[in-house]
Amino acid sequence: MNEVIALLQAHRSIRKFKPQPVPDALIEEIVRCGQAAASSSNIQATTVIRVRDAGKRERLAELAGGQPYVASAGAFLVFCADLHRAKLVCEGQGGTFDPGMTEHFIIATTDVALAAQNCAVAAESLGLGICYIGGLRNNPQDVADLLQLPQAVYPVFGMCLGYPDQAPELKPRLPLTVVLKEDGYGDPGALAGIEPYDAQMRDYYRSRSGGTKDSSWSEELKVLATKSRPHMREFLARRGFTMK
Amino acid sequence: MNEVIALLQAHRSIRKFKPQPVPDALIEEIVRCGQAAASSSNIQATTVIRVRDAGKRERLAELAGGQPYVASAGAFLVFCADLHRAKLVCEGQGGTFDPGMTEHFIIATTDVALAAQNCAVAAESLGLGICYIGGLRNNPQDVADLLQLPQAVYPVFGMCLGYPDQAPELKPRLPLTVVLKEDGYGDPGALAGIEPYDAQMRDYYRSRSGGTKDSSWSEELKVLATKSRPHMREFLARRGFTMK
Repeated sequence: MNEVIALLQAHRSIRKFKPQPVPDALIEEIVRCGQAAASSSNIQATTVIRVRDAGKRERLAELAGGQPYVASAGAFLVFCADLHRAKLVCEGQGGTFDPGMTEHFIIATTDVALAAQNCAVAAESLGLGICYIGGLRNNPQDVADLLQLPQAVYPVFGMCLGYPDQAPELKPRLPLTVVLKEDGYGDPGALAGIEPYDAQMRDYYRSRSGGTKDSSWSEELKVLATKSRPHMREFLARRGFTMK
Repeated sequence: MNEVIALLQAHRSIRKFKPQPVPDALIEEIVRCGQAAASSSNIQATTVIRVRDAGKRERLAELAGGQPYVASAGAFLVFCADLHRAKLVCEGQGGTFDPGMTEHFIIATTDVALAAQNCAVAAESLGLGICYIGGLRNNPQDVADLLQLPQAVYPVFGMCLGYPDQAPELKPRLPLTVVLKEDGYGDPGALAGIEPYDAQMRDYYRSRSGGTKDSSWSEELKVLATKSRPHMREFLARRGFTMK
């Protein structure tokens, strides 16, 4: 195992940060690493908004469902899927670009995620901790308004960055045999590997909560299933992502 | 700049590989790195199918629009967004899980992209080259059939991995000032930075093509705009991703 692999496998989300800010030069280097990730047909559909304004940070912390580290982290980035830029450029060439195509939505969302993960890895290599904030999709219209996002741009998630002030346990993952298959999907009813993982996650939750959280991966998934953010379809359609 | 950042910023897609295969132990280590990426609510919606069967590799190369390296690369992975597993587990808990929610589609697609990018970084740290194959979405139903994907699973993209037999130029990216903004999106009509980038990309295309390709980023985007894979919406709906 080399150092890069050790770094990748040591990832944990950090939600408690030392008060010091992250120097601008580091943020710029981190976002350059994001840009270096592959981009579908080089469309580069990622726009990153660094939020520095304290009032906006407080508001985003609320909009994300009350996550105070959105306001207190050394830096906060909003990763936007941006088809506005492509549309503007195509129209400047006398062409058109329809952000309503489902394929373009996939391209843009995937572009953002690849770029963001490079940012996460770069940040961790610099001794920073990070936490993705999918909670921005709790109130995406308010986020879009706050950041004055034009049509054909949506906030996919945020990212807190800062110097870690906690050292949480590694969260166990599904056994490799569950997620890596060969030549085909195999038996779709197979649950081998889930049961021991449930037991492992139960231990993890108990340990992390000091004994108060008694749950398994499967039980947590059942809770997750209800968090389906039913406003997303309409929100995206209003933005021009009509999923044609 | 540390070594990890240097590695990230040195990424280029590799499409020509030495004939030697990639050892199984490396693929497993690489996929473990993918698993270590953040996952929305720990849903772990990524399933990776390593395709080893030569006939299937040839077929996938065709389905991806005639990309021979899909067949010839040392290894080929298909990254699937998998909500089937979550559904199965939730139903086993007496709950339900609706893969038709747009939010769940975003969660799954994003999960896959974060995991894949970790795999890409891990692979490159091991001296391998990689290339994402979005072309699997040219004929996604045939890919799903070939790999016997159950409902609520779709192939987001593939990835070729292998020992590089080429050393392509770095592809220039948009100026940082175009993609990194502060506190808000700013002027949505601004195109500053695009013009010099177009000139830079024209030089890049000329150099890479030995003078035969005379195009800019903006001109290429106009071509991309037409490649909207209009079958994706119906394909995804048939899979259960109805975008509610």
